[in-house]
Amino acid sequence: MARSYDTISFLSDLGVVDETVGVVTAIVRDLAPHVTVVHLTHQVPPFDVRAGSLALARAIAYVPSGVVLAAVDAGPESGRPLVAIEVAGGEGVLVGPDNGLLAPAVAMAGGAGRAVLLGGGDVQLASPGGVFPVRDVLAPIAAQLCNGVDLAELGVLVDADTLLPGVVPLPRDAQGGGVSAEVLWIDRVGNCQLNVGADELAPWGSSVGVSLQLVAGETVRTANRVDHAGGLGPGSVGLLVDHYGMLALVLERRSAAEELQVGVGDQIVLRPLADDDRGRSAVVTSIAMGPRR
Amino acid sequence: MARSYDTISFLSDLGVVDETVGVVTAIVRDLAPHVTVVHLTHQVPPFDVRAGSLALARAIAYVPSGVVLAAVDAGPESGRPLVAIEVAGGEGVLVGPDNGLLAPAVAMAGGAGRAVLLGGGDVQLASPGGVFPVRDVLAPIAAQLCNGVDLAELGVLVDADTLLPGVVPLPRDAQGGGVSAEVLWIDRVGNCQLNVGADELAPWGSSVGVSLQLVAGETVRTANRVDHAGGLGPGSVGLLVDHYGMLALVLERRSAAEELQVGVGDQIVLRPLADDDRGRSAVVTSIAMGPRR
Amino acid sequence: MARSYDTISFLSDLGVVDETVGVVTAIVRDLAPHVTVVHLTHQVPPFDVRAGSLALARAIAYVPSGVVLAAVDAGPESGRPLVAIEVAGGEGVLVGPDNGLLAPAVAMAGGAGRAVLLGGGDVQLASPGGVFPVRDVLAPIAAQLCNGVDLAELGVLVDADTLLPGVVPLPRDAQGGGVSAEVLWIDRVGNCQLNVGADELAPWGSSVGVSLQLVAGETVRTANRVDHAGGLGPGSVGLLVDHYGMLALVLERRSAAEELQVGVGDQIVLRPLADDDRGRSAVVTSIAMGPRR
Repeated sequence: MARSYDTISFLSDLGVVDETVGVVTAIVRDLAPHVTVVHLTHQVPPFDVRAGSLALARAIAYVPSGVVLAAVDAGPESGRPLVAIEVAGGEGVLVGPDNGLLAPAVAMAGGAGRAVLLGGGDVQLASPGGVFPVRDVLAPIAAQLCNGVDLAELGVLVDADTLLPGVVPLPRDAQGGGVSAEVLWIDRVGNCQLNVGADELAPWGSSVGVSLQLVAGETVRTANRVDHAGGLGPGSVGLLVDHYGMLALVLERRSAAEELQVGVGDQIVLRPLADDDRGRSAVVTSIAMGPRR
Repeated sequence: MARSYDTISFLSDLGVVDETVGVVTAIVRDLAPHVTVVHLTHQVPPFDVRAGSLALARAIAYVPSGVVLAAVDAGPESGRPLVAIEVAGGEGVLVGPDNGLLAPAVAMAGGAGRAVLLGGGDVQLASPGGVFPVRDVLAPIAAQLCNGVDLAELGVLVDADTLLPGVVPLPRDAQGGGVSAEVLWIDRVGNCQLNVGADELAPWGSSVGVSLQLVAGETVRTANRVDHAGGLGPGSVGLLVDHYGMLALVLERRSAAEELQVGVGDQIVLRPLADDDRGRSAVVTSIAMGPRR
Repeated sequence: MARSYDTISFLSDLGVVDETVGVVTAIVRDLAPHVTVVHLTHQVPPFDVRAGSLALARAIAYVPSGVVLAAVDAGPESGRPLVAIEVAGGEGVLVGPDNGLLAPAVAMAGGAGRAVLLGGGDVQLASPGGVFPVRDVLAPIAAQLCNGVDLAELGVLVDADTLLPGVVPLPRDAQGGGVSAEVLWIDRVGNCQLNVGADELAPWGSSVGVSLQLVAGETVRTANRVDHAGGLGPGSVGLLVDHYGMLALVLERRSAAEELQVGVGDQIVLRPLADDDRGRSAVVTSIAMGPRR
């Protein structure tokens, strides 16, 4: 017998200006009235699968047992099928497009269990026009999973290893020494999260108090390794371990992204003030969804 | 005995920047704790009754049994009374201003049953200043309906045919042949929904693969009838049947509204590439709220 | 035995673009599944404690029994501790930073009962990086209060009189007569709420129909005391008692803030058209959180 669930955590690129998110929520309310919908965010930039996958990856450790409904670039024009993927021994099921959106979250949840390709089943809602996947397929599927319908009844079982992996950039050696990082995310106040974990600067010394050279495009600045942005003073750039364990560039109550004129995806070089050229391997890794071994 | 309800679907022009929507939700939570509020959207442009009525009409088929609380231009400066209208044999009640906002949704729900003019009753909350209809009247009314208070106890029964109808533009014959359509709605990614149903282009042939001439202001383009925007290629304009069964102008992952420089309410002419002048009747229809006959 | 609660009313400066508010909501859902979260607003400008405290003060009379979770400038860089404050004999508990954010709402709820300084306890969630107070401390604290954990178990009891008071500006005598007011809040449609209660213009006559001189920076206009903005006509400035009992400058379906080029915190002088120089005392008051005497 399948489990039932009482929470759907919902993330999308649908925006909150029109009624689409409301309609999806209404469908869930109609089909599975016992369910509470937790809106993670709906302002992932349209079609931006990478931004959506990173937001979901940041959130996944906090998401309660239940269904995750994730829809970023989920339209038919993407040419990608829809999937449902079990994680954590069935404690959770992620439903969304098979376009890499779910992969980092699935990996962080311990890897994929059973997976099915969705679409074409009885669960789909009839559309008055073209099919709207999040409304006509993903929402009713999420609701029926909550009602105790087993994953296997909702589509064709597939090997999770055949699903599209996510891609996250890894930091690389910088020319002339140091590390070449990428801006993963800019938060509401302009802090710039880098793709560099707290430990990865260790070779050059990254304890609080150390200063590093920071190169962002034409800009060369000094970044001070701090605990938090308090007390940095006007214009002074801080480097801290953020709430997710990643290094981030910050200013005190101002936007580091504006001050440094950087955006998501831009490259940043961090190096010791006294140059040093220890070798590091330059790699990009793909995140597959197979179970952990 | 009156029915009780456990869902309020809420649509407004209140925005989400300040706490007003939160306060209305709090009032419902306080007066009817068993109710779940589904937020359809709160970003209808201020005072834009037509945009609100179209959003509600798009949503209504997906709204669960219960109360619909709709507030667009609901202030006393509009000079319009507040109403509650039963639909679907009491399965639903719509509450909001009598300014045409509710009419299309009421019609789509099968027409009005009983209707009452609200205001002045015991249910109204005391205001520390001027009356704020959505907070002081509509919210407590919606909550009390959910608690099982009968419509007739909340105001003065009126004939639904005396309420303000909604007005939706119908497509007209274009000078020089073809159809003159209006942009009803521009969605998040810039797709332009027209006031033309999927079948209404049939006289000129509208099956997938057909090309039509598109005139938007000074711009003359070719629009290709497609299933979805995928594969259109840069700059190519597509015409498809959207998720609501209406024709829409689209580009592949870009904004058709920006490309064509059109806004809501603008006129668009669609005609066969080889001109043709079959006659069509030019009409605007009003949507009254009487029961279907 | 401590009370338990089933509602958390949540106000913050976290914005709704990223997933932070969703994560906090998910944590509450996980730790206290019986709780409904009412989102008051999350678009308080970042770090703007005054704007947040005013929004919370406007909302508090409508907030149901339960926990209020308020996070504006709640980061460690503010250097302020986190607190939980009981009000209304335990009917409510406000949790947030001790930076003045809670003070006006606590005062309006009848003053503080017991208060504790939070942080460092078992309730805190482990962070993968730096501590994120709203996620790692305030959310689990709010959830545990709902679960019936007593305030005293969550921190160190302190005297509420030692907590930071809120500061609200009081209107002052204007040079040359009349009252010098401050814009407290600009709502979605551009109405400008002033720090002047409905009665405070009485010395110069403020009943509907009276006209006053209005000075905003270089601009000198006439403001007409009205009931609502309806019928003002283009460009005519109205002065009314708003939904919260405060005087506000309004235009008919246009933004008074744009017309008068004023922002939050700007000074406005209102004086009789025939000058008059009755004396008024100029004061700023602080709002302490002790119980009402």
